[in-house]
Amino acid sequence: MAELREILDKDLDAVAIGAAILGTGGGGNPYIGMLRCRQELRKGRKIDVIPIGELPDDALVVSLGGIGAPVVGVEKMEQGEECLRAMRALEADLNCTIDALISSEIGGSNAMEPMLTAAQAGIPVVDGDGMGRAFPEMQMCTWSIYGHTSAPSAMADEKGNIVIIKSTRNEVWVETLARANVVAMGAAAGIAMAPMRGSYVKKFAVQSTVTQALSLGNTVLDAQRRNADPIAAVLAHEDGQMLMTGKIVDLERHLKGGFAVGHISVAGFGDFKGDAGRIDIQNEFLVFRRNDKVEVCVPDLIVVLDVDTGLPITTEVLRYGQRIAVLALPCDDLLRTPQALAVVGPAAFGYDDITFTPMPRIEARDDS
Amino acid sequence: MAELREILDKDLDAVAIGAAILGTGGGGNPYIGMLRCRQELRKGRKIDVIPIGELPDDALVVSLGGIGAPVVGVEKMEQGEECLRAMRALEADLNCTIDALISSEIGGSNAMEPMLTAAQAGIPVVDGDGMGRAFPEMQMCTWSIYGHTSAPSAMADEKGNIVIIKSTRNEVWVETLARANVVAMGAAAGIAMAPMRGSYVKKFAVQSTVTQALSLGNTVLDAQRRNADPIAAVLAHEDGQMLMTGKIVDLERHLKGGFAVGHISVAGFGDFKGDAGRIDIQNEFLVFRRNDKVEVCVPDLIVVLDVDTGLPITTEVLRYGQRIAVLALPCDDLLRTPQALAVVGPAAFGYDDITFTPMPRIEARDDS
Repeated sequence: MAELREILDKDLDAVAIGAAILGTGGGGNPYIGMLRCRQELRKGRKIDVIPIGELPDDALVVSLGGIGAPVVGVEKMEQGEECLRAMRALEADLNCTIDALISSEIGGSNAMEPMLTAAQAGIPVVDGDGMGRAFPEMQMCTWSIYGHTSAPSAMADEKGNIVIIKSTRNEVWVETLARANVVAMGAAAGIAMAPMRGSYVKKFAVQSTVTQALSLGNTVLDAQRRNADPIAAVLAHEDGQMLMTGKIVDLERHLKGGFAVGHISVAGFGDFKGDAGRIDIQNEFLVFRRNDKVEVCVPDLIVVLDVDTGLPITTEVLRYGQRIAVLALPCDDLLRTPQALAVVGPAAFGYDDITFTPMPRIEARDDS
Repeated sequence: MAELREILDKDLDAVAIGAAILGTGGGGNPYIGMLRCRQELRKGRKIDVIPIGELPDDALVVSLGGIGAPVVGVEKMEQGEECLRAMRALEADLNCTIDALISSEIGGSNAMEPMLTAAQAGIPVVDGDGMGRAFPEMQMCTWSIYGHTSAPSAMADEKGNIVIIKSTRNEVWVETLARANVVAMGAAAGIAMAPMRGSYVKKFAVQSTVTQALSLGNTVLDAQRRNADPIAAVLAHEDGQMLMTGKIVDLERHLKGGFAVGHISVAGFGDFKGDAGRIDIQNEFLVFRRNDKVEVCVPDLIVVLDVDTGLPITTEVLRYGQRIAVLALPCDDLLRTPQALAVVGPAAFGYDDITFTPMPRIEARDDS
């Protein structure tokens, strides 16, 4: 398959759907970002994509995106160049020229932000990201996990304020200080983090995830067009596993420290009749239990789709009575090392009693 | 009188007392800062003072101090070089060398911080400040009022975190963003604001207030030594006016948005028997009423002293039953212009119904 070189107007819907699925319930809605990318393309700008393998080793690659409460991102429209201004502030601070942008998380709205800024700045976006999914905090990126220092990071809001987080004690402090600033800025801002070298990105980014999001979204759209089963298409595309089809029979969700926290209970139907499912939520879907036994947990992906349309259901639109399919998709191997599990494994989310076991692949299940 | 050239160990107690009086109930306790200055002097360092008139016009002068909740400043000891690190970060950001430091507010703990940092950095502290008293927010400095842009400002905490507030929409946004960062940093940090030229400081700083604090404190200490009336000494020194002696008979004080807000009621005694006084509090003492009629308000200074010892009582240690003297001291003329009153007059604190009238000087009262 030819490597992806450009995102065209006709690709944007598919990228947004793929990104929303990979958001595992969180990551923010990519819809607005998708519309704004479309606007840029229709002005004659381009979204160039560069395969990770083609990055020069000394290229300066910046991870950049929106930060803030996803719900505000929908209600308070960005001025439109927050991330570009953050990027320019970072260049000025370091007296450098940034060669390419990369998404910190392909899952959700921050799949689109680097594309938008790349089009505005006339530089390419890298075909990869720092999570292969969505996580709630910045230090959960692969590059932070494997030793990159994200300070200095530059933040810009729509009012013209610019803050540089110049140096920090560790990666968690970048997140803490950025979060404090974005709250003061009105809950939405753009952030550009300290550049990485191309050689580092080649080692520590999750590879080809822009291609993956596009192809995954096209799979869903194609199944819909053919009146085929989009859920089966997603499973086949992602080497995933069907965990359960069922109805939401209980839902608890509240805001705690800026995060959506809670759980849903699912009464199985179809092949899963009699099963009682439960998914714990902390912005994203974290843990899936069947009959009180943990089957899948972070960093593997737990995805909830509408059982009829195959479209992803994010945590903020969960409702009692929804008929859903719960899927498990394997996370990237970069997230499964002991070093990574310390930051994105179940214990990092407060589950001291759960040990991460990689989800069984479909092949494994067939063998059993 | 010879101009002040140096603060010596023997001067520190007096400076701290003078600064606390000028704090008008707020500004934070200068005691810890005084002890830390003493420590520096005993290491062999010096606190050089430069009269404003001697600043070269092109000197780079930086306003610098602690930011955070005063109560935390007492409980959580600073590492000791927060302001120095903030100053160095500002120098690095602007690629400049700072020639002198100045206090943003002579009233309270930030009288001492620039002295401490000046001793550490080996540069002088300017004999002046930006308020001639204390106010709760940074945009209330004379230099901000008259057009200085405080961004970039550099902040440093005891953990090694450094944040640069690079550019902002206006001066209030510097305050807003600095406040958000200091809360994340654990409620105490050092901040160094964009340099001013010597020529600007000459026009827009409140002059000779280090000299004033030292001399005022010495007046109190001297009266105590002589068993004279320290309150009369303060009044004479500051061209002030005795508003009332009385007992606190009602006290309401609560924390609201990080500020101590409330009021005290005072039943007059002595010459003021029969008078009912009331002082409104918002970190500092804002408004004095006698029998429901406003007599003195911001930006003039309302000072509360223990009627017996003459020592200042700050808002956080007010208690029912305290016997106090309430004094009015005139603010600097720089705070009385329409431009200044828009930022530090009663309306800026929510008193839309109070018009500032300069407090009557003692001479005026004698004439009436």
